[in-house]
Amino acid sequence: MLNQEESRKDLGFGTKITSEQSRLINKDGSFNVRRVGDSSLNSVNWYHRLITFKWTKFLGLVFLFYFILNLIFASLYLLIGVEYLEGISNDHQQHPFWEAFFFSAQTLTTVGYGRISPTGFWTNAVAAFEALVGLLLIALATGLLYGRFSRSVPRIRFSGHALIAPYLDINGLMFRIIHERDSELIDLDVEMTLSCLDVLPSGAKTRKYYPLELERSHVNYFPLNWTIVHPITEESPLHNATAKSLNETDAEFLIIIRATDETFMQQVHARYSYHHEEILWGAKFEPMFDTSAQGNIAVRVSDIDRHRSASLNT
Amino acid sequence: MLNQEESRKDLGFGTKITSEQSRLINKDGSFNVRRVGDSSLNSVNWYHRLITFKWTKFLGLVFLFYFILNLIFASLYLLIGVEYLEGISNDHQQHPFWEAFFFSAQTLTTVGYGRISPTGFWTNAVAAFEALVGLLLIALATGLLYGRFSRSVPRIRFSGHALIAPYLDINGLMFRIIHERDSELIDLDVEMTLSCLDVLPSGAKTRKYYPLELERSHVNYFPLNWTIVHPITEESPLHNATAKSLNETDAEFLIIIRATDETFMQQVHARYSYHHEEILWGAKFEPMFDTSAQGNIAVRVSDIDRHRSASLNT
Amino acid sequence: MLNQEESRKDLGFGTKITSEQSRLINKDGSFNVRRVGDSSLNSVNWYHRLITFKWTKFLGLVFLFYFILNLIFASLYLLIGVEYLEGISNDHQQHPFWEAFFFSAQTLTTVGYGRISPTGFWTNAVAAFEALVGLLLIALATGLLYGRFSRSVPRIRFSGHALIAPYLDINGLMFRIIHERDSELIDLDVEMTLSCLDVLPSGAKTRKYYPLELERSHVNYFPLNWTIVHPITEESPLHNATAKSLNETDAEFLIIIRATDETFMQQVHARYSYHHEEILWGAKFEPMFDTSAQGNIAVRVSDIDRHRSASLNT
Amino acid sequence: MLNQEESRKDLGFGTKITSEQSRLINKDGSFNVRRVGDSSLNSVNWYHRLITFKWTKFLGLVFLFYFILNLIFASLYLLIGVEYLEGISNDHQQHPFWEAFFFSAQTLTTVGYGRISPTGFWTNAVAAFEALVGLLLIALATGLLYGRFSRSVPRIRFSGHALIAPYLDINGLMFRIIHERDSELIDLDVEMTLSCLDVLPSGAKTRKYYPLELERSHVNYFPLNWTIVHPITEESPLHNATAKSLNETDAEFLIIIRATDETFMQQVHARYSYHHEEILWGAKFEPMFDTSAQGNIAVRVSDIDRHRSASLNT
Repeated sequence: MLNQEESRKDLGFGTKITSEQSRLINKDGSFNVRRVGDSSLNSVNWYHRLITFKWTKFLGLVFLFYFILNLIFASLYLLIGVEYLEGISNDHQQHPFWEAFFFSAQTLTTVGYGRISPTGFWTNAVAAFEALVGLLLIALATGLLYGRFSRSVPRIRFSGHALIAPYLDINGLMFRIIHERDSELIDLDVEMTLSCLDVLPSGAKTRKYYPLELERSHVNYFPLNWTIVHPITEESPLHNATAKSLNETDAEFLIIIRATDETFMQQVHARYSYHHEEILWGAKFEPMFDTSAQGNIAVRVSDIDRHRSASLNT
Repeated sequence: MLNQEESRKDLGFGTKITSEQSRLINKDGSFNVRRVGDSSLNSVNWYHRLITFKWTKFLGLVFLFYFILNLIFASLYLLIGVEYLEGISNDHQQHPFWEAFFFSAQTLTTVGYGRISPTGFWTNAVAAFEALVGLLLIALATGLLYGRFSRSVPRIRFSGHALIAPYLDINGLMFRIIHERDSELIDLDVEMTLSCLDVLPSGAKTRKYYPLELERSHVNYFPLNWTIVHPITEESPLHNATAKSLNETDAEFLIIIRATDETFMQQVHARYSYHHEEILWGAKFEPMFDTSAQGNIAVRVSDIDRHRSASLNT
Repeated sequence: MLNQEESRKDLGFGTKITSEQSRLINKDGSFNVRRVGDSSLNSVNWYHRLITFKWTKFLGLVFLFYFILNLIFASLYLLIGVEYLEGISNDHQQHPFWEAFFFSAQTLTTVGYGRISPTGFWTNAVAAFEALVGLLLIALATGLLYGRFSRSVPRIRFSGHALIAPYLDINGLMFRIIHERDSELIDLDVEMTLSCLDVLPSGAKTRKYYPLELERSHVNYFPLNWTIVHPITEESPLHNATAKSLNETDAEFLIIIRATDETFMQQVHARYSYHHEEILWGAKFEPMFDTSAQGNIAVRVSDIDRHRSASLNT
Repeated sequence: MLNQEESRKDLGFGTKITSEQSRLINKDGSFNVRRVGDSSLNSVNWYHRLITFKWTKFLGLVFLFYFILNLIFASLYLLIGVEYLEGISNDHQQHPFWEAFFFSAQTLTTVGYGRISPTGFWTNAVAAFEALVGLLLIALATGLLYGRFSRSVPRIRFSGHALIAPYLDINGLMFRIIHERDSELIDLDVEMTLSCLDVLPSGAKTRKYYPLELERSHVNYFPLNWTIVHPITEESPLHNATAKSLNETDAEFLIIIRATDETFMQQVHARYSYHHEEILWGAKFEPMFDTSAQGNIAVRVSDIDRHRSASLNT
């Protein structure tokens, strides 16, 4: 009984997600799950957020934050008294607020030209504090930029569809992947699991998970494309499956890829899923690499989806 | 004989901790052990300390350090002679000490407005030294902030109690966990060990460790809550155990969780323990997630402790 | 049939690279493959590029970028009006453009001497922006320099040739390696695969891969040189092979080395290949280390290629 | 024959180090091996050097480098002409060289007070260059300081001697270890290998390696001390060994410890060796931890070497 449970291979989603037409894994690899009821900011991993934001959003936030911080400090300087900012009064080209604002910017960035400089205890104290804040923020930005840049994000591109194609004298479920980056991934492992609904004797629905055996689940190198094949043998849970039966059982094919990014020898991880409507029956991938006369091999990344129809073995 | 020893599975606490009512693992996951007799500062890992301090404490220390450093350098400048700080004398709004203090702050942060500037060999030399010290400290702060931010601290929340609940046609020891962060943990492994006192034939007490077999000890993904179950089969060391017997043998359930933080594909580790008085007999966890009509799944983090009483199988 | 496929051990190059005289792995360890058809800049991993450039190229780029950025900001300041740069006009030793250029440099690096300082809203705004840009670039440079420095690049030197040498009472394919760095590599694993062309019954060529069994494929430490030996037993795919047969089948020996860099306990990885013309038949490596009278051991790195001819066992 | 070789378990030192009285592993864990004959600076891993230097040496180098760099730039400024450093001439308290020197320091650290400021193209150009150099050096220092601090160096202390002590009804070779830091090591694995000289039938000496089976080679946690025991059973290579026989065969006990530093979940590694004269025959370790009445456990680090004589089992 225990062994039976152990072999169920559930991946962590459990058996109780039985609503149909809902993906477990979204197209971007994230889970279709929200955590609620814990509204505290505490649960947000800010570092994680800040390094996964888009670059445009990240830089926008940096500039906004810089602007607001200068507004605050400028207000403080005005509050203490503009007369404690020496060098402001000799020309009236500019409103004192903006003079204070730019003095704040010069302090926060530690440029400190000195045309305007603080006098008096409080203005000096605020400026000394602002300079320290500036340095800590620079330190933070340095860490964030390093974190953003050095994070090894694999750019594995999956074919848009998985195909049911002839494979040797049977058929196979196939998809293919390619690495879009100019760095190398090595030691790739791939796992594919079929998630589908099953009806219990009681009539209740339960979600089941079936690992799918692959023709090859590991490669050492990944310089070319890789076509991953689940041969539909008699032992396969897909034996006798049809487009209709996959639809009825709300079938989803969950894919995990683990690899090592060679630049930093760092583990990377990619998730993907093909929902049943993304399966093409009776199609075959076209080759996507050529060898030139000089022996150079060229892979055409944009051809990853090229396929033609093919009659299935029966 | 050797094999017998090998199978004892001791975790590293040894058999000689026989005082009752003492936890091996505290509620925060730390060990209930102090290292003494090596008073040198050498044994303190300062980096470790500085990145594990609370943020408030860390920032407080930074500001204190900045203040003290400026006090020291200000004293040095006064010692050499306030007349070597050019620009100080032209207004007497402020005591020379504070002028020196803020000059020091401007140097340490490399703002260097220049209203006050060093003249003379020694003041210049001290200022040049201070600027270098400032830069090294900024470098340090950068490293510390990066270390603090990028350290992957899993926020696994454990249910407050472990329950003895009905499980299939027997009973089980159950607790549940959830990840409180918005980043993902993958590839979780969990181990549970029972630590309890045993009486040797000689009458002496010895501490023994029993690994507890789990219904499932690994999940690939952790988007929802996970209920970890030790089925109390006939082979279980808990077979025939009662609240009283656990109390008498000073039972403690030690839990290790290993996982991978997906943001950086970094290994993380969590420890927890349930002391015998934290076990509830005859209770059952209530579900803590819902699926909406649109197929979205929502987990209520705050419901982790919700349970109701349930009669045990006998 | 599936098992047969599984055991093919293909490494990730596939069977269809059948042009002769083309290496799969270049002498620098890179793959002889280009990815084409995805012209977007998106596919370039800039961080990867910037940290793998040569130091001279990297520093050259930094200086060029600094120069260009100052050109741009100088132009902006001139556009707004040179009269808003206070302090410029009092001597005419220098063209206003260069004054603006150097003012820009002082702002970008946050030196901010203040002899020239911005007045007016727009000049101040541009300067405040430039200082922020400067800081972000410094943050970036910090990350890149750290990334460059801390990246653990093993410097494993391979003997220029692989030798077919007498080994015990048979022969062996041998090459040797040494670590050129003063840091230590530990836990080395080595794999060697023979890649060669085979003719199918249909007359078509296919590329096959044969793992080669090694005398020893793991060492804990690597303080000396290490000679890696594939003994040519009767089970070896090289049994009965000759220089001619290797040439005809376009044989290439692919080598993977995995190790741990002890300084950071980081995984490192090296690739190498010997093409058939880099095999010497009937030669033997000369020893490359000595033990002094005092028991000190000295390895002569430059002797890695030293060998003498030796008659093979038959 | 191959299998025989494979089982030799050589660690990477080979069989040819046959000089007596030479350690393979020094007391600090480094190898007793020099790499020679490759005089190029290329082979030095500067990052490795700079982060493994002692702190005092590292900081000394930083200050020296700062001093020399300022000397060089000061000379350059003087060469171009002291008259291009505006602000120097108004007082003659100080020699122009030192004024240039401190101006350089203010530029390199980007303090830039501005009392002295560059005029003229070349002085400005050098200053702009120096400021960039300064920033790159700060970036470097930041990386180095982070590297130094964040490098997880385990501080495992080994007992000064290994003991031959009574163990159950036989004897055992024992040593003990403790972690001197306040951070935690988890998942420790230990391996012990006996390295000794053997005489071949030909009369030549060869070095052999025997793995020693341990009572326990893994612990999950390491909060206390850990006594590692090789039981001298009849299968042990130490069966019938004496102090004299170990001396004659130049015996050395090589120890590898692998663990995970919990603060960063980083792999760490320690090496140690006991040479035959560091073995005590007939001694037993004294306990080194106490449990207080309140159930707190205290380990006395300084007691690691405490032992008393004990008669061996025969």
